[in-house]
Amino acid sequence: MRLARFLQNGLAGYGIYMDDGVQPIAWEPFEDSDREESFQKLPHSDISPLAPVVPTKIVCIGLNYRDHAEEFGMEIPGEPTLFLKAPSTLLEPGGTVIYPQRSSQVDYEAELAVVIGGTAFQVSEDDALDYVFGYTCGLDMTARDLQMSDGQWTRAKNFDTFCPLGPWVETELDPGGLDLSLELNGTVKQRSNTSRLIAGVPRLVSFISSIMTLCPGDVIMTGTPSGVGPVERGDEIEMSIEGIGTLTCKIG
Amino acid sequence: MRLARFLQNGLAGYGIYMDDGVQPIAWEPFEDSDREESFQKLPHSDISPLAPVVPTKIVCIGLNYRDHAEEFGMEIPGEPTLFLKAPSTLLEPGGTVIYPQRSSQVDYEAELAVVIGGTAFQVSEDDALDYVFGYTCGLDMTARDLQMSDGQWTRAKNFDTFCPLGPWVETELDPGGLDLSLELNGTVKQRSNTSRLIAGVPRLVSFISSIMTLCPGDVIMTGTPSGVGPVERGDEIEMSIEGIGTLTCKIG
Repeated sequence: MRLARFLQNGLAGYGIYMDDGVQPIAWEPFEDSDREESFQKLPHSDISPLAPVVPTKIVCIGLNYRDHAEEFGMEIPGEPTLFLKAPSTLLEPGGTVIYPQRSSQVDYEAELAVVIGGTAFQVSEDDALDYVFGYTCGLDMTARDLQMSDGQWTRAKNFDTFCPLGPWVETELDPGGLDLSLELNGTVKQRSNTSRLIAGVPRLVSFISSIMTLCPGDVIMTGTPSGVGPVERGDEIEMSIEGIGTLTCKIG
Repeated sequence: MRLARFLQNGLAGYGIYMDDGVQPIAWEPFEDSDREESFQKLPHSDISPLAPVVPTKIVCIGLNYRDHAEEFGMEIPGEPTLFLKAPSTLLEPGGTVIYPQRSSQVDYEAELAVVIGGTAFQVSEDDALDYVFGYTCGLDMTARDLQMSDGQWTRAKNFDTFCPLGPWVETELDPGGLDLSLELNGTVKQRSNTSRLIAGVPRLVSFISSIMTLCPGDVIMTGTPSGVGPVERGDEIEMSIEGIGTLTCKIG
């Protein structure tokens, strides 16, 4: 299933994404339910896409691919390094990342994003995938100059629109060996596979849930591979993950 | 007005805190409204207090009192240093902070907490207080050992229960010169005044809103003065801010 979120006539709702439209759903996507009612399918021309979930938090992992740590000359941390992006960073598929006036280097970082489906507190690695609803594409846009000068990464990662997410949540997927790539203006800049994650999805869900309760709809950004680099106003980004699809955005 | 949030028979709601009970309200606290209906007053014995708001984000400021920066030998940053606590850190007034197994030094940090009332994006310092709904007491509990070893502060600040907040939001208050104090097991450990904040409330609201949109109910933790120190299981904390009231919690 491809869970999407959309806007029609100013109202937001969840639906199932299909090639010829979105089927709005009457049930809450994160509750176990036998209900299957749905409303009349809406053609894509009648709706605007939204980021596919409304998380209470977006938990991000730094330096989780060996080649990305090496390109910055950073040591691989013994445990995952966490930081947070606020929900105000979310950007809808096809949207425009706003280049902040106060930065002079904004970088793209393509990442596999995990969407939590159940309330997870202190879950084991063996049980972790039971708490995952599905997967989507995420961009961890980063004001690299501010990240370096601030020490703490929060400001650099938290400008409005700095977390493009989507286009939908794919619920039927094994996260262990997915090709991931990013193109900037049609040129491939990042290309890797989730098998190269230092801490994989079960480890991340278990580790984070040992610190904070993960709630349905929460997002884990699993880190980016090598090849990160700067964007300019007017650029177009296209990132794809095998089995999910393609997320696009512009820089404005 | 003292805006409180409470639980009765498993249902959560907002109300006005009074000495003899809480008056549940029928209107949304963060919307301008002429509606003044309210329901029958509930005696305190019939309800359990909750953290007084449900924020989409909790934005915290590091090193915002000169004496606290000095006690850690840290340089005063030129601009406020931001970090985030996730909503899963919230703890109700009178609740128990859970001491994480993986830390061996958890510190208290008493702070003036600002509650946002309107959607704030790029607001000036002159207009900033128009976007503030009110003020409450907040504790920025910190696993100091993990803060030092991790580099990034996110994990150390984000264990469940690490943000006791309350007991209510006081809406009629000038934040500029309020006495603030914290007692650990009856002994005063922190005592300062919000006039000593390096970046005051208007500057913080303006600065943060230049990065990310602040939403109604969002919380800004303004930083802690000197006197921070460790807690042990079984300890009791009482923090007070002039014109607001007293927030208590236990360590468990």
